[in-house]
Formats: sequence, C-alpha cells, structure tokens
Amino acid sequence: MTSYKALLVICDGMGDRVQREFGDETPLGIAKTPTFDRLASTGSVGLMDPVSPGIRPGSDYATTALLGYDPRVYYVGRGGLEAAGAGMELKPGDVAFRCNFSTVYENLTVIDRRAGRIEHGTTEIAETVRSIRPKGIKGLRIDFQATVAHRGVLVFRGRGLSRMVSDVDPHETGVKILKCEPLDDSMAAKRTAVAVNDFVLRSFRILKNHPVNLERIREGKRPANIVLPRGAGTLPPFKSLHDLYGMKVACVAAVALVKGVCRIAGAEIITPEGATGGLDTNYEGKARAALRALENHDLVILHVKAPDVASHDGDFRMKASVIEKIDAAVGKIVPSLDMASTYVVVTADHSTPVSVKDHSGNPVPLLINGPGVPGSKVSKFSENAVSRGNLGRLHGLDVMPMIADYLDKAKKFGF
Amino acid sequence: MTSYKALLVICDGMGDRVQREFGDETPLGIAKTPTFDRLASTGSVGLMDPVSPGIRPGSDYATTALLGYDPRVYYVGRGGLEAAGAGMELKPGDVAFRCNFSTVYENLTVIDRRAGRIEHGTTEIAETVRSIRPKGIKGLRIDFQATVAHRGVLVFRGRGLSRMVSDVDPHETGVKILKCEPLDDSMAAKRTAVAVNDFVLRSFRILKNHPVNLERIREGKRPANIVLPRGAGTLPPFKSLHDLYGMKVACVAAVALVKGVCRIAGAEIITPEGATGGLDTNYEGKARAALRALENHDLVILHVKAPDVASHDGDFRMKASVIEKIDAAVGKIVPSLDMASTYVVVTADHSTPVSVKDHSGNPVPLLINGPGVPGSKVSKFSENAVSRGNLGRLHGLDVMPMIADYLDKAKKFGF
Repeated sequence: MTSYKALLVICDGMGDRVQREFGDETPLGIAKTPTFDRLASTGSVGLMDPVSPGIRPGSDYATTALLGYDPRVYYVGRGGLEAAGAGMELKPGDVAFRCNFSTVYENLTVIDRRAGRIEHGTTEIAETVRSIRPKGIKGLRIDFQATVAHRGVLVFRGRGLSRMVSDVDPHETGVKILKCEPLDDSMAAKRTAVAVNDFVLRSFRILKNHPVNLERIREGKRPANIVLPRGAGTLPPFKSLHDLYGMKVACVAAVALVKGVCRIAGAEIITPEGATGGLDTNYEGKARAALRALENHDLVILHVKAPDVASHDGDFRMKASVIEKIDAAVGKIVPSLDMASTYVVVTADHSTPVSVKDHSGNPVPLLINGPGVPGSKVSKFSENAVSRGNLGRLHGLDVMPMIADYLDKAKKFGF
Repeated sequence: MTSYKALLVICDGMGDRVQREFGDETPLGIAKTPTFDRLASTGSVGLMDPVSPGIRPGSDYATTALLGYDPRVYYVGRGGLEAAGAGMELKPGDVAFRCNFSTVYENLTVIDRRAGRIEHGTTEIAETVRSIRPKGIKGLRIDFQATVAHRGVLVFRGRGLSRMVSDVDPHETGVKILKCEPLDDSMAAKRTAVAVNDFVLRSFRILKNHPVNLERIREGKRPANIVLPRGAGTLPPFKSLHDLYGMKVACVAAVALVKGVCRIAGAEIITPEGATGGLDTNYEGKARAALRALENHDLVILHVKAPDVASHDGDFRMKASVIEKIDAAVGKIVPSLDMASTYVVVTADHSTPVSVKDHSGNPVPLLINGPGVPGSKVSKFSENAVSRGNLGRLHGLDVMPMIADYLDKAKKFGF
C-alpha cells in the first residue's frame, strides 16, 4: 500500500489586496513564483477564508483553524500557546502569560516596553523572577522563562486560577502600567488578578537593583526592571493530530506562537539553524529541514514568517521578494519529492495587506497538488487567478480534513 | 488616515430564477443596469445565500442575517421588529405583535383581514384600543399604535410574558379567527395566550360600535371592528453595529420591518419624502438621501422594496423595470462618491422569483466595489454572470464582517 505524505507550506500573512499601481495585483500576483505556478496549474486552487469572510484572525487564531481546531471553540488565549512554544509544560488549570521585560519609572510609568531590547542577562533575571511568591492564591506556584530578547513566559500553577484577567502591559509608553482586572464575576478571576498585580509589583522591587540591571544602568542602557504580563491563556484542549488522524506530524518554524500551536497539536518542532522568523531567515535551510522531516513524518508543516513581516512594514516589493524566496526554496526540494505519493499544499494563515499593515479579513490563496488532484490549468498562483479556481472558496478548518483524506488518514462518519 | 465609508444597496427580493421565455435569464439579467454592471466589472462579484442554500427567509429574517446577526440565534419573532419600526420602545420581557384591523361577523368569522384597507380614523381607533385592559396577567400594561393603513402594533408590557404563543389572525377570510394557543409548556405562554384572547374579544366589543366604524358602515365601508394579532416577538438581543464595530450607521428605508431591524441594530432611520415602499417610490430621492447620510455615517443602508412588490405580483417585466430605476438612481449618486475611500455593495435580502410570487431559497447576486477590491471583469450584474465571479459563494452573515473589514472597523481575534 502506498504511504502518502504531505508538505503544508504556510506563508505567514501572504494574502493581500490588489493595488492599482501594481496593475491591480497583489504582492503574490507580481512575484515570480515558477514553482508555485506549476503546482497551481497541475494541482487544484481556490480561495480560503481562515475563519470566515471578513473575520480578521491573529496568527495564533488562524493557525489553530488551519490545523483543524475550530478557534471559536478551542481558542483559549495566547499565553498557553506561548508557553508551549517555549517548551514549558502546561497542565489543565495552569494559566500562562506572554511577558515583556520592560523599563518603568519608580511611579510605574512605562519608559520602554522592551527594556532597550535587552539581549543579555535575561537568564539570570528570569532565575530571580522565578523566586517571586505572589500573594492572593493559596498553594500558587510560579514558573517563568525568558525566551528571545525582551520576551518571556510566566506560568501560574495551582488550583482556582482563571485566564479571564486583563493585561498589565499598557501596550504604550509614557503611561502607567495597567492593573490586572478580573474579566468575569468568578472568584478565580478575582484571585488570579490579585496574584498577577502582586507578582508585577514584586518583580519591580526585586529587579530594580538586580546586578544585571545595575550593570545596564552603568552602561547607559535601560534596565529590565519589571515584568509586564499580558494575553492570559490556558492549555487549549486539543486532541493531537496523531490521536485524531493517526498522523505523525513535524513543524519547521521559528516563531514561538506557531511552534506552540503545533506542539500542542502533537507536532515535533524543528527549528533549523538560521531560522529567525525574520526577513533574513534561512529559507532554503528550512525547506531542506522539511524535506528531511518528510522521511519519517506523514505531514510536515513548513512555516515562514517573512511575508507577514514585510506586510507589517507596508513594503509591497519586499513582500513580493520574500515570497519569491519561499518559492525558490520550495523549488529546491520539489524535485526530491516522490510526487506519486506526496501532496504539496501551499497557502497562508491569513491576509496581511501591505496597505493595512495589519491582518485583514480577506481570503488567502490555496493550492493542493498531488496524486488524484485535478489540475486547475490556472497559470499563476495569485489571489486573483485562484479566485476562479477549481476548489471554489473554502474555510481554514477545511484544510486539515482534506489533507487527512488524501493521506487516507480520515475516519468515516457513519457506515 | 483615510476614513472609509460604505453604501449598502439592498434591492428587496431582487434575486430570481431564470425563465426560458426571457432567454434563460432573470429580471435582473434582462434589465439595463449600466451602473451595477460597471461596479460589477471593476469590483468583485459572487452569489450570496441569505441564510444557506435552499432556505427561504422572510424579509426580517434575511435582513437580520445581512446586518450580521445570525437569525438562527437572534431571530425572536416579527413583533419586536415591527414595534421598533413603529418607533415603540421595547424593553426586555415585553412581547409585541403585528396586528391587522379586520372586519368580522358577530360570530367572529373573518370578512376582510384588512377592514377594506382602511385609510382614515385609525388613530382614533388606536386610542380606544389602548384603553383595553385584558385579563390573565397581573400588572399587564398594553400599548398600541396604528402604523400604515390597516396595520398596527400591539405591545404587552409587564412580567411573566412569553412570545411563544400562536397567531389569532387566520390569514384567510370566511373562517373564524383563531384562538391564541401557548406554543410551549411554560406558565408564561399559557397566561400570555389567555391575555391575547381576552384582548381580541374586548377589541371586538369596544370597536364594533366605535364612531369611526359606525361612520364607515353608513358609507358602505367595512368596519375595523376587531384587532387580530400575529407574529408575537420580543426585542432581539442585538448589540448595536456601533458597539460591535464602532460604525455609525444610517438606513434609508420605507418599510416598517426593515426600519425596525435597522433601528435595533443602532442605525439612524431616514425616510425621505415620497419613499413609499411601493413601485411608485421616490427612487432618486432615496438615493440622494443616502448620499447625504454618507457625509456623517460610516455605513449607509439603502433599502428599496419595489423589486419584491413586483415579484409578489408575478410581473417579470415590471420587476426588471424597477431594478432599472434603482440602477439609475444609484447611477445619479455614484459620480459624487469618492471611490478612493468609498465601498459600494449591491445585493438583495433574498430571492422572490416572479414564478413563485413568494420568497425562495435561491441565492442572490452580490457585488462589492472599492479600494483594494479585485475587479471581476464580469460585464453584467446578474445571477447568471456572477455565479462564476471572483467572490465565490458567500452567506448573508459574511457581508457585514466583510464591510467592517474593508472599513478597517473589524476587530482582530487572537494576536
């Protein structure tokens, strides 16, 4: 029996709106993408709404849908995904927070949300933060890890916790930090908010004279003198893709949030050298890592953040250019794939129009190529061209069942 | 920053089925619609199912969906929408009924459901109706207003009411009025039914010798000697479009039901002179009112009832002709719109095929034109032509999120 495999290439934020000055085309529309074009023509293409038309999903929300978990049911905040991305084990009931090391004045007005984009010493600071014992909840244990630069993850472990609490990070400078407030009437939310506020104040008291910070002040740098939590979340109640479909899955990615969603879905996480999550990422290295991972996985997800980065910068040509780099990198490995048994799916998690510089609710292009998939004869992989493709208009939630079906991993409903 | 606006043109009941004798075309298909055609070609087009394929929605149900409220969740009967359309304030717990002034024999057999389409004296009759004190529910207060011709709205206010009661209006003549029955096992429904039946009997007793009716009888006209309630409903639990999206909305409409839905959604209601809800409506006056409303609103809904009226009359050519009038009226204002910041959406709330003379479950044509929207190059706005358009097939519920997304009013889910 043939053992089918699938490569799912997620070009983060690739979907876009047309611009008149580029001939009513999108960045993908003007990009030279010979590999995607060939896969589109000999495969099936269509438009895909990550959630539903007009709905603007964050990357976490959209990736949740793309992996087949309805985010309207399963999305439980950012913190749990961040914790999973940082490799911190989360148990049901634990509440996790994305955190920034920040710089505040004595009166808690924010000077710099990123503490001068601190690069060194965060491991020592994190160790100190882990010693904090916030009041408010009996038996509360905390865990904390610094991840990249000014970023960290805080986990509250214990009983009677709730993710329904507001952010402390005010998301701007020159204003005081926010008080964490309960977002519902539960005692758990009230208590969790008390503990978060106490944690934040203690972090300031314990960090303002921390050796790393005293050294930074001497060097004229901004001290990481407080920890500001936000995005409270719990472990999403995902069954793994292995439990759902019997699929062995790997994910080649650099971004913590994406790694988090994939890890919770049961994927093995692979971050090859030079994978940065930026415009300068190691495109070919990631593609080759995906090729290797296909040897012993049924499904390999290759996630590239760069198009989204160029989109948030509002750079149309740069976005086209990084899409060309992804196309070229995939083009390097396609000749090594056995196309009699391998499916290649190319899509985006959501649209990030360069004109908006943020996520939008526009649909994204989708192609699927492999044995038994009808050819669209569409000659260009672009939003415009696939809008009249042979797949019609699908939802993000449809993608994983379609892959499972082609891989003969789908279960039958009924008899 | 650009401030985007949108004009949403709802051509009531415009969707239709093809007829062989008209070259396998629909009324829209044979209508000369140069404005819609140009907007379709340079904008995106597709088919839209008001609810889902094959589902026949009433105007209230369909408009609820088109405004972005899932009618399967939010639809709570016609009465609440009628009351809002009549400008009667409804509180949670109140139950409202659409009513007809009708003519019955002494034995309550219906002679005329519309009391000879009574035009005058209804204000006096309504004042008398307001004095009725039905038995059955302690502390019950009633409110009543005559609206247009034989139409009125009854509101029960108080505690322990239920909308789960059946119609008194039998919807035909020559039969007795119906007894209002509870539609579930609740005490509230039983008591509400008792009060409705008592109200109806008292309305007959108090109206049969009403001066207006004695005068009508002298003139050989049918007396409005009873009030027949139907369509019990409550205030739909809509958050306003302003609360949901921060959009300031206006609605240019003549029909009470549509005005009601829009008012509950937070829209300012504008009914220009000569807007009748009929074939003779002031098409251009309504379009110009919409243009003026765009000056200080984010979204203006322009609703025209005429295509539905022609459809219920089963008049194919008349329907095509009123569609041409709408196209011409919109054509008068489009040159005054700044198309670099304005979106124009044209669609129908539902299909009303002239062959059926009633609403059907067929999809309706949809076009959206504005900055960043890809051109379809479809040369005619018609059900046939847009069925191969670049939007694919959408749902009524998708329209409002798409508008909010283009107006940059959509919130992001997740991060």
